[in-house]
Amino acid sequence: MAIEKKIILCGFGNVGRAFARLLAAKEEDLNARFGLAPRLEAVVDIGGAAVAEEQGLAPGRITDFVEAGGTVEKFESFGRPGLTAADLLGRVDADILVETTPTNLKDGEPARTHFMAAIENKLDIIAANKGPLVLDYRRILERACRQGVQIRFSAATAAALPTLDVGRLCTAGARIEAIEGILNGTTNYILSRMAREGCAYEDALRDAQALGIAETDPTLDVEGLDTRNKIVLIANTLFGLALDPCEVGTTGITGVTPADMAAAREAGNVIKLIGSARLTGNGPLVKVAPEALPADHPLAGVNLSEKGISYDTDTMGRITVTGGHSSPTGAAAAMLKDLIHLVKLGI
Amino acid sequence: MAIEKKIILCGFGNVGRAFARLLAAKEEDLNARFGLAPRLEAVVDIGGAAVAEEQGLAPGRITDFVEAGGTVEKFESFGRPGLTAADLLGRVDADILVETTPTNLKDGEPARTHFMAAIENKLDIIAANKGPLVLDYRRILERACRQGVQIRFSAATAAALPTLDVGRLCTAGARIEAIEGILNGTTNYILSRMAREGCAYEDALRDAQALGIAETDPTLDVEGLDTRNKIVLIANTLFGLALDPCEVGTTGITGVTPADMAAAREAGNVIKLIGSARLTGNGPLVKVAPEALPADHPLAGVNLSEKGISYDTDTMGRITVTGGHSSPTGAAAAMLKDLIHLVKLGI
Repeated sequence: MAIEKKIILCGFGNVGRAFARLLAAKEEDLNARFGLAPRLEAVVDIGGAAVAEEQGLAPGRITDFVEAGGTVEKFESFGRPGLTAADLLGRVDADILVETTPTNLKDGEPARTHFMAAIENKLDIIAANKGPLVLDYRRILERACRQGVQIRFSAATAAALPTLDVGRLCTAGARIEAIEGILNGTTNYILSRMAREGCAYEDALRDAQALGIAETDPTLDVEGLDTRNKIVLIANTLFGLALDPCEVGTTGITGVTPADMAAAREAGNVIKLIGSARLTGNGPLVKVAPEALPADHPLAGVNLSEKGISYDTDTMGRITVTGGHSSPTGAAAAMLKDLIHLVKLGI
Repeated sequence: MAIEKKIILCGFGNVGRAFARLLAAKEEDLNARFGLAPRLEAVVDIGGAAVAEEQGLAPGRITDFVEAGGTVEKFESFGRPGLTAADLLGRVDADILVETTPTNLKDGEPARTHFMAAIENKLDIIAANKGPLVLDYRRILERACRQGVQIRFSAATAAALPTLDVGRLCTAGARIEAIEGILNGTTNYILSRMAREGCAYEDALRDAQALGIAETDPTLDVEGLDTRNKIVLIANTLFGLALDPCEVGTTGITGVTPADMAAAREAGNVIKLIGSARLTGNGPLVKVAPEALPADHPLAGVNLSEKGISYDTDTMGRITVTGGHSSPTGAAAAMLKDLIHLVKLGI
């Protein structure tokens, strides 16, 4: 018998829908390979919810419906206009909250409220949204711990690039001494274009925007804040910290000039935006800054929108992992992986 | 209370001693972080065994003793000259066999006998030795399965490079469509030197031998057999196969010429010895051969003695992991990781 897990999916944008698509596409495979039967109990979006009756919602059908222009609260007989996640959590019997609402780095809402309600009601959490975790890591983890609730956030720490898995599982028993990551695809794309073509930051940014790689307001990426948020979550998890992101020295890439690039190349280096963390005698040192990496550094060849992370350890040497889709499907696949780990491995 | 696991360590060469050293160095850490208390019940080497009485053997002390010129069977009051692993397994109460005897690719002995005795007596197995697994994978796995015995062999599939972890854990829920690996440090060193310096294979081999990177008889490495054995174990594990290694098309690097290297460079490529596996409509295609990788291939920058492996997946894109010590300590750290996974995660 497969293990049934009832899911409440909050947020039905690109990542939420990609997750529902994966549930549909992988149903047979999850059952056969992992003995796992996820059941979509409810989907919540801005205008309301769709709530299953006896069978669970058909994840493919609700996704088709919304992608054809419908809204969640009008889905077949299951739509409940105006119903919120806060209403649902606690009233609908479920095991796991999958949180994919848009990240809000001011107050973490609405995801923060969803997190707290899930913890209160003893639902485990799988999050793509990094807002509440970045803003309020210690309190959320403490509450979750008291309630025996697990929280997983692979999708918030570089999507399909298995940053935390490599740091937690692949290096189990080794001591991580330093972490360096290229954690943001947009800035790596801009720096790669500048390095290859000698162009100005503004020109590379404009191209990235035209290609949809950078947003119209690129601040979060180019000022290094997205990289900071990811390295903070990674360092918190692996070093047992509870950093205030505002205290992490963060320099973005807006000041990198073609002359800097040329000087780096001349010296055999390449400039990358690096989020780094290391434990020193004076405590943890976590920062974000453009750094000149030597050509043989394992992250030096990570180009364009690719990401990568490198762990220096006491007994295993340096282990580096690169790649992984940054797309909604990549993020959804990371959440599906979290689901398998959580349910089947307890990790 | 920490979980106590009684270990029989077979083979006390470089890797076995490095494992004992790690048990000593990591004792406190294993207890604090993983609630795990490994206990060294016996060590077996060529001339006999050392068998614990009430407390377990002190792993640091027996390693010091042997590194100062002693032999296992003469260790303090615990030495038992002539006692073999086959004698011990089943007579000494233990949970896990750690197998680090030298790999024998003719008949797998003595490790094959140790494996079978461990399975018979329901000890889980953590192996650095790939002989029995390469030669007799299906039979060993079937017997282990019938007995409820787990077998882990990270150290046999590229030491501290987490080849199997990334393929099993980091990509859980995704379908692996293709695997490509640089799995042998010696051949990668030789090819890297040839690529950089334009030198002949024989000259690069001689340098590698002078540096202790290649063995006096380099056949296993340079003919691609070590790479073959590793890709066979990886493909067997991840694709559920039971390949006969003799049927894997294997070309080594002895025929690679400076002219090949120059032609590859001219085309913007770099030649690497690649072990690859993919599932095709006609079944699995597993092979070992020198391949010209484009400069932006994620394994193209893996140079000198470094190794790496790249997984192409359906939902996560391509994920590549590189690095990890190839030393005895790296192999021992991989076995310690297997121990933690096995005992604490059941994976």
